[in-house]
Amino acid sequence: MPVGTQATVKSLTPDELESLGARIILGNTYHLYLRPGSDCIERIGGLHRFMNWSGSILTDSGGFQVFSLARINKIQEDGVWFQSHIDGSKHLIRPETSMEIQMQLGSDIAMCFDECTPYPVDRSYAEKSMGLTVRWAKRCKNAHGGGDQALFGIVQGSVFTDLRLACLEQMSEIGFDGYALGSLSVGEPKEDMLRVLDEVTPHLPKDRPRYLMGVGTPEDLVEGVRLGVDMFDCVMPTRNARNGMLFTPRGALQIKNSRYREDLEPIEPGCTCYTCLRFSRAYLRHLFMARELLAYRLLTLHNLHYYLSLMEEMRAAIESGSFPTWRGAFYARRGAQAA
Amino acid sequence: MPVGTQATVKSLTPDELESLGARIILGNTYHLYLRPGSDCIERIGGLHRFMNWSGSILTDSGGFQVFSLARINKIQEDGVWFQSHIDGSKHLIRPETSMEIQMQLGSDIAMCFDECTPYPVDRSYAEKSMGLTVRWAKRCKNAHGGGDQALFGIVQGSVFTDLRLACLEQMSEIGFDGYALGSLSVGEPKEDMLRVLDEVTPHLPKDRPRYLMGVGTPEDLVEGVRLGVDMFDCVMPTRNARNGMLFTPRGALQIKNSRYREDLEPIEPGCTCYTCLRFSRAYLRHLFMARELLAYRLLTLHNLHYYLSLMEEMRAAIESGSFPTWRGAFYARRGAQAA
Repeated sequence: MPVGTQATVKSLTPDELESLGARIILGNTYHLYLRPGSDCIERIGGLHRFMNWSGSILTDSGGFQVFSLARINKIQEDGVWFQSHIDGSKHLIRPETSMEIQMQLGSDIAMCFDECTPYPVDRSYAEKSMGLTVRWAKRCKNAHGGGDQALFGIVQGSVFTDLRLACLEQMSEIGFDGYALGSLSVGEPKEDMLRVLDEVTPHLPKDRPRYLMGVGTPEDLVEGVRLGVDMFDCVMPTRNARNGMLFTPRGALQIKNSRYREDLEPIEPGCTCYTCLRFSRAYLRHLFMARELLAYRLLTLHNLHYYLSLMEEMRAAIESGSFPTWRGAFYARRGAQAA
Repeated sequence: MPVGTQATVKSLTPDELESLGARIILGNTYHLYLRPGSDCIERIGGLHRFMNWSGSILTDSGGFQVFSLARINKIQEDGVWFQSHIDGSKHLIRPETSMEIQMQLGSDIAMCFDECTPYPVDRSYAEKSMGLTVRWAKRCKNAHGGGDQALFGIVQGSVFTDLRLACLEQMSEIGFDGYALGSLSVGEPKEDMLRVLDEVTPHLPKDRPRYLMGVGTPEDLVEGVRLGVDMFDCVMPTRNARNGMLFTPRGALQIKNSRYREDLEPIEPGCTCYTCLRFSRAYLRHLFMARELLAYRLLTLHNLHYYLSLMEEMRAAIESGSFPTWRGAFYARRGAQAA
């Protein structure tokens, strides 16, 4: 899912997202609640109409941003008091508030309000945090209106597999339309993330979407899929594009590198994205160095094309039963070996 | 002509410019000479290929930017010493240099290197400055390679009509493919600009394009056309868009105004631009307030559509002999009377 934090995937139109093959994007509840306001978006007819996007939308719960962007005044059983990063105003978000906001936004998939467990934490903190997330999940389920909007539960427990599995059991009892793994890729060693995926994913309900939140690099996506994950979201393709870092099958390319000054090749020869079909590295480097707005658009288009094509290739490989071969080729192109 | 200073009309792709009906854009010699370098653009195959624009390009001489952006060390008969606004490096631009750079860029229309006369100046300064511009124009004509690239002369003389006419006579003797009026809209009262246009334009060769440089508001364009001008360039539609100021037949609209917070109307009901067909004022206001990159694109598209449609309407009105009626309606829609 491309990330459309403030009712826009930065620099792109909904038409472009559609052309890229995006079928679902992520919107950030925290940002939209503060600006323009979820009540405002509801009166306007919901987030789809507001931004003119006819594909699907998943909204996060606001939890992650409350913990990472806002100044937190207090986490308590009832909810979280925080101060807006925009104007310092004080707000209480309770699990019920998060549900109400996401219903106002009218997303297709709402996420339970959870505590994003930081890393590193000791086992007792992780256990307490997981307990709070479970109690909040029950309140979310009760407060959620159901109907056309799906509700996903979030499995916490940090890097402690037994806590993750205990959390999953309780989440399954509550019953959700899909299950997410939260608080991974938050600073823990890569091996820990892969170990948790390896040990937890097989226990996720097979008939529900499995969503790995906030992940990740192309390699993370490939390994996530190998271990049974269906959905991902990450700002990496869009944010890195705006920093001049481009994804290619052979690895990363920094467009500001002076070697591209007069390079007439596209970012990646053979790439069929809008940018590669029309513009040279030399031109893109110039736009980036001159901080031209067009740079951010064109580089974002390329990176999202890369990410969405990667997912498409993996879907096709799974369907044809050739995922292991495909994965070997993926690493070979990068000059690396599959683990 | 939309202004594409650094080989891009800010935020737009060449495809979008084409869809807007733009047939010619302006590129800034000064900026491109400094970054990425006109030698670099020449080796890449010229500005058209560099930015993938198949329409026409007019390049200015670099004179205006040398006088307005750079730190000038010395204006002398031979040329102008200046320091780059990017890295402080020192450069001498002579009329011959300007021609060489514009030939390297491969624009369709090159402009003579001139001294942009500031306002206000006394008559003797204006006369001296005009004399220098004429001597430089001769050197430009001699240095210019001809061929497929047209060369336009620039008529100077500040607000002194007799100096303008004397300049024009000498420029006509040298002989150019088109004639521009420079150093207008540089701070002089609007009446002075209109008076100069009224008194000078009738003497411009009837069979050559007439170009009013750096102008202007929609009203300026209408009055310029009424007084016989064919071509204009101005950053106003693009720059104002990025500042949230939108042009409509009824006057200006500031998108950040809080009255648009939940306004589902397009910028201008009935407008056929991409932005108005798809997005509400409420959404555009949100994007602008949140400083989202998409705001600059969508607002730029609207403003350029307005400017280019305005010129198209005037062309049609002239062809059908109804320009005076059209002009009356133009002012009536704005709640103003034609002068």
